Amino acid sequence: MAHEDTKEWFYRHVQDLQDRIVAEMKALDPALSVNEDVWERRDHAGEPGGGGRTRALTGEVFENAGVNVSCVYGALDPAFASKLGGTGDEKLWAAGISLILHPRNPRVPTVHANFRMVSVGDEVWFGGGADLTPYYPNTEDFTAFHRSWKDALADLGTYPEWKAWCDRYFCNHHRADEMRGIGGVFFDRFRQGTVEEDARTVAALSENFIPSYFPIAARRVDEAYTPEDEEFMLYRRGRYVEFNLLHDRGTQFGLRTNGRTESILISLPARVRFGYRWTPAEGTPHAEMMENYWPKDWA
Amino acid sequence: MAHEDTKEWFYRHVQDLQDRIVAEMKALDPALSVNEDVWERRDHAGEPGGGGRTRALTGEVFENAGVNVSCVYGALDPAFASKLGGTGDEKLWAAGISLILHPRNPRVPTVHANFRMVSVGDEVWFGGGADLTPYYPNTEDFTAFHRSWKDALADLGTYPEWKAWCDRYFCNHHRADEMRGIGGVFFDRFRQGTVEEDARTVAALSENFIPSYFPIAARRVDEAYTPEDEEFMLYRRGRYVEFNLLHDRGTQFGLRTNGRTESILISLPARVRFGYRWTPAEGTPHAEMMENYWPKDWA
Repeated sequence: MAHEDTKEWFYRHVQDLQDRIVAEMKALDPALSVNEDVWERRDHAGEPGGGGRTRALTGEVFENAGVNVSCVYGALDPAFASKLGGTGDEKLWAAGISLILHPRNPRVPTVHANFRMVSVGDEVWFGGGADLTPYYPNTEDFTAFHRSWKDALADLGTYPEWKAWCDRYFCNHHRADEMRGIGGVFFDRFRQGTVEEDARTVAALSENFIPSYFPIAARRVDEAYTPEDEEFMLYRRGRYVEFNLLHDRGTQFGLRTNGRTESILISLPARVRFGYRWTPAEGTPHAEMMENYWPKDWA
Repeated sequence: MAHEDTKEWFYRHVQDLQDRIVAEMKALDPALSVNEDVWERRDHAGEPGGGGRTRALTGEVFENAGVNVSCVYGALDPAFASKLGGTGDEKLWAAGISLILHPRNPRVPTVHANFRMVSVGDEVWFGGGADLTPYYPNTEDFTAFHRSWKDALADLGTYPEWKAWCDRYFCNHHRADEMRGIGGVFFDRFRQGTVEEDARTVAALSENFIPSYFPIAARRVDEAYTPEDEEFMLYRRGRYVEFNLLHDRGTQFGLRTNGRTESILISLPARVRFGYRWTPAEGTPHAEMMENYWPKDWA
């Protein structure tokens, strides 16, 4: 097996990042309670297939959140392997961090990020990204988030491409491609240098999650909000659920590779509303916000 | 084009049934408001492709409900046609009624039913069914619902098969096949006699929805309930959303055939909760109810 040291190094990195992100959350939300589950899985053939450390969090600032790491390996479901471009005989190895934070205050954006290293047969690649889902038109936050990722990607020069990829990916195709939020960056099948170099590049990038999000959350967390703000958030959370269950490849991948259902669906927000032809009242900040769920040049 | 008279007759039947079901709802829920939308669609090639009549309802008994009819036709998305077993050149024609009622009182079960006639190329078939999603272990209701459908299917003799099909279909495969409710009957690709005979058989069966459900709703609607009952309902509604968006072929079919998104997703309940490793407290009626979301012989 190739690249064993790099695989181990990358998994240790995301475990360390999990600790640091939860520490940042606690600094902002001292009431945060952490429910940690360490779990193991079996692969498609019933053999030991790795596992993970799921942290489900709830507090005063964060209504519900998941900050998870996992390292899974073993035989693939042959039907699913062919979707990945394989023959069905390959072994999978994948490690990464995946997180989603759903704040209570509608002025604090929801955020999602994911960074992973994947190996199928002889191929190794990296994927990930971070995207923001705000519920109020504080557009300076959107610019700050995008600029943070643009700066972090300055050396790679991939911000324009990965920003456009995110715009295309995190959208509800059944709603004329309306986005779930205001985007961010998304990449998959990334390879540039050696496996070791690329692991370090992606690890460094993953650390940018902390400065990209927590300053925004910190400056909004005490902002007063209205019942209408909350109602708007609950309906937009419905669109989030639609995306995650109908379109998200990470969710499909997890459920199809015998992943741990509770760790995968931790991404769903605690309280949600759905409504036939729901739309915010005209002339409100929420109607204004609806205009932002489409690709825009925020940086 | 074959069977034009039968197609027209079947579509008129489901339109009439829509009126009768909404009248039953109003009888139980005089505050019910009806939001009707008559809509048209374009097919995959951009040509006129039929339409429908969506009725979104909300009242004191029913928190949200949809009772929809549609008749759609035209060119299929070739990739989707091949999933249906076709070559991609066939024309689709499909008409039916689809309904879902989400009551406010957790002692009144949620119910879903659907009856449709489908024609692709030279083939004609019928599909449909009805399934109940209760939130309280009033098991006599479950027996009444199943017996109603068993009686309605006495001549066809298909209750055992269609009940088992329903048990297999309406379940969350990502949750070890836990069912979304307590089942009912489900059938697809039904053909037995001539197209005209089969249309009459399925039309007669669809009328059984009214006596299968409304007596149960009527006897529970004034039953007092607790905050814990409501909380249990909200989490179980989360499982309903998971099924509809992850697994339901009707939802996938609708969204993949350029269906009207708002009419399809009307099935989602208005208020929903999700929670990491959510489970009801031991020794409660809700823990008891959890045992009922698995195949059982209710009739």
